[in-house]
Amino acid sequence: MMQKKLLLIVSIILNLVFTIHILYYSSTTWNPTWTNRAAAEAETVASFSCSGHGRAFVDGLGVLDGQKPPCECNNCYIGKDCSVLLKDCPVDANSGDPLFLEPFWMRQAERSAILVSGWHRMSYIYEDGTYVSRELEKVIRKLHSVVGNAVTDNRFVIFGSGTTQLLAAAVHALSLTNSSVSSPARLLTSIPYYAMYKDQAEFFDSAHLKFEGNASAWKQSGRNDNITQVIEVVTSPNNPDGKLKRAVLDGPNVKTLHDYAYYWPHFSPITHPVDEDLSLFSLSKTTGHAGSRFGWGLVKDKAIYEKMDRFIRLTSMGVSKETQLHVLQLLKVVVGDGGNEIFSFGYGTVKKRWETLNKIFSMSTRFSLQTIKPEYCNYFKKVREFTPSYAWVKCERPEDTNCYEIFRAAKITGRNGNVFGSEERFVRLSLIRSQDDFDQLIAMLKKLVYHEEDVPSENFMYI
Amino acid sequence: MMQKKLLLIVSIILNLVFTIHILYYSSTTWNPTWTNRAAAEAETVASFSCSGHGRAFVDGLGVLDGQKPPCECNNCYIGKDCSVLLKDCPVDANSGDPLFLEPFWMRQAERSAILVSGWHRMSYIYEDGTYVSRELEKVIRKLHSVVGNAVTDNRFVIFGSGTTQLLAAAVHALSLTNSSVSSPARLLTSIPYYAMYKDQAEFFDSAHLKFEGNASAWKQSGRNDNITQVIEVVTSPNNPDGKLKRAVLDGPNVKTLHDYAYYWPHFSPITHPVDEDLSLFSLSKTTGHAGSRFGWGLVKDKAIYEKMDRFIRLTSMGVSKETQLHVLQLLKVVVGDGGNEIFSFGYGTVKKRWETLNKIFSMSTRFSLQTIKPEYCNYFKKVREFTPSYAWVKCERPEDTNCYEIFRAAKITGRNGNVFGSEERFVRLSLIRSQDDFDQLIAMLKKLVYHEEDVPSENFMYI
Ligand SMILES: Cc1ncc(COP(=O)(O)O)c(C=O)c1O
Ligand SMILES: Cc1ncc(COP(=O)(O)O)c(C=O)c1O
Repeated sequence: MMQKKLLLIVSIILNLVFTIHILYYSSTTWNPTWTNRAAAEAETVASFSCSGHGRAFVDGLGVLDGQKPPCECNNCYIGKDCSVLLKDCPVDANSGDPLFLEPFWMRQAERSAILVSGWHRMSYIYEDGTYVSRELEKVIRKLHSVVGNAVTDNRFVIFGSGTTQLLAAAVHALSLTNSSVSSPARLLTSIPYYAMYKDQAEFFDSAHLKFEGNASAWKQSGRNDNITQVIEVVTSPNNPDGKLKRAVLDGPNVKTLHDYAYYWPHFSPITHPVDEDLSLFSLSKTTGHAGSRFGWGLVKDKAIYEKMDRFIRLTSMGVSKETQLHVLQLLKVVVGDGGNEIFSFGYGTVKKRWETLNKIFSMSTRFSLQTIKPEYCNYFKKVREFTPSYAWVKCERPEDTNCYEIFRAAKITGRNGNVFGSEERFVRLSLIRSQDDFDQLIAMLKKLVYHEEDVPSENFMYI
Repeated sequence: MMQKKLLLIVSIILNLVFTIHILYYSSTTWNPTWTNRAAAEAETVASFSCSGHGRAFVDGLGVLDGQKPPCECNNCYIGKDCSVLLKDCPVDANSGDPLFLEPFWMRQAERSAILVSGWHRMSYIYEDGTYVSRELEKVIRKLHSVVGNAVTDNRFVIFGSGTTQLLAAAVHALSLTNSSVSSPARLLTSIPYYAMYKDQAEFFDSAHLKFEGNASAWKQSGRNDNITQVIEVVTSPNNPDGKLKRAVLDGPNVKTLHDYAYYWPHFSPITHPVDEDLSLFSLSKTTGHAGSRFGWGLVKDKAIYEKMDRFIRLTSMGVSKETQLHVLQLLKVVVGDGGNEIFSFGYGTVKKRWETLNKIFSMSTRFSLQTIKPEYCNYFKKVREFTPSYAWVKCERPEDTNCYEIFRAAKITGRNGNVFGSEERFVRLSLIRSQDDFDQLIAMLKKLVYHEEDVPSENFMYI
């Protein structure tokens, strides 16, 4: 009798507990509806570990046929789960693919994700009739203010499909203000320089522009006549050597375009907020999202801004709305803590890489690296080393005239110095790629440097 | 006693039911983790109804400051929830913003959403080293095959930030094959034409290209000498008048570029699969996603393809990876049922709009519309009307020399015929905008047409 009574009481209490549980659960958990499929797909794909040497993406090969997207393995790793490391595999240290920041974004998974609905901003324009998200513009101004690397007051902000598009737009706009003079504007820069400037100018082959090369040489030549219109591109920190640069030329005939793609705490002390007429920045090197194709410019002069805007309109009618949405979310994460997490991570990673690299090169008499004196960084509030994106390596032996080939024979693909308008005695090695790429680079560099004595350089061709 | 026993049994059964419910629920529902925030945000924003006359977006004004994104109201609607219709508000029938397809994508919410992770494809390139998603290329070929509007065999597929970028790339590539001849290639098309062709050619002001205009006039002129290099742009169906077009010129000195932005069942009978040297298509007019900035080209000649590819590389280094991911998902939905749902919806919508329009204009002697004879459509397997994106309206009264102004005085903003290289006696009205825009257009048109008798045209300026 007592037992039965007890059983009844327990049973009823249990019923109450269940009821409360169910009520509570259904009121506090959010029940995904139409976002369910996309979210579940993303979670599934993200859960593939690919042995830590690759990743799967929701748009991987075969998904159209209903297959699970495969692991896309890092260089030198193969196998279904990227678990097999190829032996003696050639190292890729060529392009500036900024994957060193990928681990940061994986850690920020929740805060950095976006869900794009099928009807997201189908219009050509935003509500204000422009191609530019005002919220994104706002967060960009905020970013510069928290990092302290650029003045944005009294500046127009312009967006492009990568700094690449803005470079073309800016050079075009600057060359167009040249109407009164009959000869084309000369495009000048410092050697070594980022090859895109030359390639664009030569490819578009405009009647208004001619790539001329070295600004210092121009300055000393008789052609520096204060009449010929000149556009100087200043890349600071410079690609490939990481140095802070200043304009070489001035005068009423000179227009200056600053490419600040690398002026972020990952790579350089922030010595002052830049305050130039025309400055360009790149998401690729800020957050590492090169695939998103997003860059922006700060432009003082309204007429130049309008010409650039027209260039963007006539080449792409603005930047993809999906991209703008994603960039807004990413930069929201960045400015959320004043850039603290991302720049500490980025600087920490590149610094560690430079320490490893310096250690190896310090044992070499055959190869040398660029050196730049530390400077005070207003962002980290301390004197800090430069930690450029690239190692700019010089082959010191007289017979090593082609440094790129020396490295290639040692299974390291860099980028030839002559691509930057410099000598073949230089080669650029990218240090901002994935950790796997860097680790492989280090392994191969060790072989190369530690065997300097026993392997004369001529023999490298046969290794 | 019996009651107690019954109570106990019921209670135990209830407990069992609860247990099973909880077990089942937690095993079959997927528990979102890192995608939770993004998905919840998207769901919340999508739930704002904005009275059916606007929509909110996750990147709306104020979200950076933690505010809920506001309703962005359709033209002529105001208020926090877009519930207030302004009286006598000017109608926007100007741009070809393809919002007529927005309701379709809202209905396809679940299938068309994507979740973009913070580390989605950060690299400049895909696994194969290109800027092009192979899955997206595959679904585009599939799309043409299910619609039957283009042959894709033996074609390179090239992506651009809108057809806009591809137009510039194609014209540039075609003009470059002109090296042996000293005079620039002439860019020709048919009148009326899409203004972008002229604007691009004039803005880039290349030494290799000159916009010349009317292909038929050129053909009859003495300059048609079989030597001067010529690029003819064929827009079919044509913007603004919706007619199917064929090339006017031929000869060894002629290169033809086909702009098939509107060759989809929404707008035109699919008379045959096109099989040209260089054909361009636009996502803007296929799925209505103009904001995504995506277009593609089918290119037969490898050298031309490579020149276009280089143009894309040097102006933007390919198309945003977020965009490519979204487009893949959208086109997956489209081809999933052979295009049946979207093209039935699209054609149905535009057809209904044309019926309304035709009814109004049939009562007018003052204004006339273009007419195109129905043709057999291989996609719908029946003879069907043309349902072009735009009404190409002619003002028939001798004194109505500026048709654009006549409509503007009647509070309808179209696009002046002279923008298309045609006469001011024509005005283009866009029919593919939102339903609200169309409804307002119809309301204003009725006023205009039904009062033809009592209001002489001179007086329109004072209404
Ligand atoms: C100096 C410099 N400017 C611009 C760019 C291009 O940037 P984006 O990826 O934004 O087009 C690069 C890329 O490496 C660069 O090194
Ligand atoms: C004939 C034609 N071609 C190309 C385009 C541009 O398309 P997209 O939005 O893909 O740049 C348009 C847009 O209206 C058009 O009418």
